[in-house]
Amino acid sequence: MNKESTKDKIIEAAATIINEKGFNNTGIQEILRAADVPKGSFYFYFRSKEDFGLELVDYYMHFLKEKLVKHLKSSERSHLNRLRNFFNAALEIQKEHQFRRGCPIGNLAQETGGLNQAFQAKLKITFNRMTTEIGRCLELAQKSGEIDASLDPYETADFILNSWEGALLRMKVERSIDPLIGFEKMIFGKVLK
Amino acid sequence: MNKESTKDKIIEAAATIINEKGFNNTGIQEILRAADVPKGSFYFYFRSKEDFGLELVDYYMHFLKEKLVKHLKSSERSHLNRLRNFFNAALEIQKEHQFRRGCPIGNLAQETGGLNQAFQAKLKITFNRMTTEIGRCLELAQKSGEIDASLDPYETADFILNSWEGALLRMKVERSIDPLIGFEKMIFGKVLK
Repeated sequence: MNKESTKDKIIEAAATIINEKGFNNTGIQEILRAADVPKGSFYFYFRSKEDFGLELVDYYMHFLKEKLVKHLKSSERSHLNRLRNFFNAALEIQKEHQFRRGCPIGNLAQETGGLNQAFQAKLKITFNRMTTEIGRCLELAQKSGEIDASLDPYETADFILNSWEGALLRMKVERSIDPLIGFEKMIFGKVLK
Repeated sequence: MNKESTKDKIIEAAATIINEKGFNNTGIQEILRAADVPKGSFYFYFRSKEDFGLELVDYYMHFLKEKLVKHLKSSERSHLNRLRNFFNAALEIQKEHQFRRGCPIGNLAQETGGLNQAFQAKLKITFNRMTTEIGRCLELAQKSGEIDASLDPYETADFILNSWEGALLRMKVERSIDPLIGFEKMIFGKVLK
């Protein structure tokens, strides 16, 4: 197996475990075991656990782009429906995992955001990329009269993404779809109206 | 020093460290050192780190009641202003700690909610207590015509608390007051109107 594919294997195996267990709570040996990669090879691929964590953020972001952000850029004519599809797809992913996982980026933010400057800077950019995409969609929805004309689309995008992260957090302790349904109801039924 | 006060000392010292560093990321020795309590005495007071964590949730909840929930029950005549005062007081606490800490309950929920059933059950109750208090305040605000009559006060309370938790999460990576200001603007300027 070449160097890149072993590295990818480690990151892929880690992504699932860390999304469920947390970054600090997951040991390197556990990741290597799950990836079926020899013990001790971790530091051949990553300088440190932090260095590895920063690459993991890129991996998660790539995953979110493939699975979710594509809905914001789809050929669907209604800009508002594109946003709906984005959150519905995100909800389906949570349902698949029995409402236990939450957002991989949000989880890392909660664990490392207040602590580690390299993570904080990287996660900040990642969130901003996401809200820019949502903001663009809202800007177009506003131009076509689908949402409240008085809203600032980018401020609203920030509020919406933050509220979604909070709904995911609550979902984890409720182990239920209710906080996500409550989010959709309030955002689409009230905030954007 | 008697048994209770040593135990309190351990929990108080831990509360600050864990609020900033996370539960899994904080070692028992580190807590004992900060509490200035002899090494090895931890298991005299707590059966396990989990058992200790569950007592910590009670401690945090007590703190939130003293510092924040009191505003929801104050003698201030406007019910809506009571809710504003609650979130303003919460914002001031975050400002004091340079926007690094977030909500101690939310942090624990993110870290342990998807994983540990005892934490999940306890945190679920804790969140529900909080939203019941907010919901009551909204119900009264609605009766006195201060907020939108069409809202369900308890569903809205859930949405508001979840959105606040999300705003705190984003605050940690932004290291800025902006997500909290954005939250207040949208909740009081749009959601409740």
